[in-house]
Amino acid sequence: MPRYKLTIEYDGSKFSGWQRQEGTPSVQQSLEEAIAAFCGQPLTLHCAGRTDAGVHALAQVAHLDFSEAYDPHRILMAINAHVRPQPVSVLSVEPVAADFHARFSATARHYRYRIVNRRAPPALDMGRAWHVPVALNADTMQEAAKRLLGHHDFTSFRDSHCQAKSPMRTLDALSVTRYEQDIVVEASARSFLHHQVRIMVGTLALAGRGKWTAEEVAAALAACDRTAAGPTAPAGGLYLTGVDY
Amino acid sequence: MPRYKLTIEYDGSKFSGWQRQEGTPSVQQSLEEAIAAFCGQPLTLHCAGRTDAGVHALAQVAHLDFSEAYDPHRILMAINAHVRPQPVSVLSVEPVAADFHARFSATARHYRYRIVNRRAPPALDMGRAWHVPVALNADTMQEAAKRLLGHHDFTSFRDSHCQAKSPMRTLDALSVTRYEQDIVVEASARSFLHHQVRIMVGTLALAGRGKWTAEEVAAALAACDRTAAGPTAPAGGLYLTGVDY
Repeated sequence: MPRYKLTIEYDGSKFSGWQRQEGTPSVQQSLEEAIAAFCGQPLTLHCAGRTDAGVHALAQVAHLDFSEAYDPHRILMAINAHVRPQPVSVLSVEPVAADFHARFSATARHYRYRIVNRRAPPALDMGRAWHVPVALNADTMQEAAKRLLGHHDFTSFRDSHCQAKSPMRTLDALSVTRYEQDIVVEASARSFLHHQVRIMVGTLALAGRGKWTAEEVAAALAACDRTAAGPTAPAGGLYLTGVDY
Repeated sequence: MPRYKLTIEYDGSKFSGWQRQEGTPSVQQSLEEAIAAFCGQPLTLHCAGRTDAGVHALAQVAHLDFSEAYDPHRILMAINAHVRPQPVSVLSVEPVAADFHARFSATARHYRYRIVNRRAPPALDMGRAWHVPVALNADTMQEAAKRLLGHHDFTSFRDSHCQAKSPMRTLDALSVTRYEQDIVVEASARSFLHHQVRIMVGTLALAGRGKWTAEEVAAALAACDRTAAGPTAPAGGLYLTGVDY
């Protein structure tokens, strides 16, 4: 059973999330239907990170096993042809070893969060960024972000529906940068808890507005209580930008 | 009659263009309906450049006359509230002199054209860039672009439906820059002919593919014949990025 690694871009605003769900469009279903149309068999895709409804990907990674070997370029062209007009695109296809697993072999996941920080709502970035009309101080957000780096119990930054066994995670990078009216948050870790990036961004935004100090963000982490942290930032601003193996 | 200048962003993929047309959604209609809901009167917006179906704007400019003076911030908030959920956003509102005209007072118009130059079709940039799957050499395109600068008869780069009286235009800037998989063309002129930017980009792409030399692009200009230039690049890659007064 030859195994292939796929790197995938998608516009999450058109889907109920990565994972197949009865009665709603998912990225997984769109791709699996395109794959079945190509090879004539129902196959299952396993992804690195099951993104929520509205969350985008610039480079999601998934693997699947075909019953026979195909030319990677042919797989890419066929899936992209069959998946149209869904906003999903396979960027690359590579043969991988039989023990490669998109989810379990991953050593790091990288996410980007985009905030449009201006009075007027975004037109072109509708559903692709969080609109924050009040002024945010990116430097203050960056200071607060540093308090979340490292190995911690991230219970405060974990959705109540999170199914992970442990709330312990190691946050390797969390940076906040302003580009004119855009504020971009970049986050990297081996793995994240459910909604972790979005709750971290929602909390950093409180610091950016001057409502919380960096100390208060650190205290929210130490509280190990979801109600101690800020709100969950909207899904549309979040992008899975890469997975390391 | 107090006159106001509006700067406007929109996602052109949802509209049949700027201009009102019976039975199809237009940017102008969306905004004029929002304005009527605010002030209770039907008013007409005059814009700097009537963009075609699918063409986007980061900073279109338009003016209108209210029957009474309003606070500019109130105008902005009211139009943006009423225009939802259309992908149109008023970025700024300024009072201007009675002789200001969005179209006739403009001294320069700036457009950007985005090409996604990679094998895989764009998912997030579907309808927001031209997908060119074969390799383009941006340096060759830049060389060819230089041949179009200056004051010329641009008949070769003018749509057959263009209603301008004269084909003479002065192209002040035309640059081609690669940013990883994206190629961005920036064009500036006092005014452009109908489809001029898109035909220039379609022609530069022939140079980027190695099919035409810079000399052949110059010869196409000199021919003063639409059939001598390249194809019209798709609308979705074009953005009106600013207007000078």
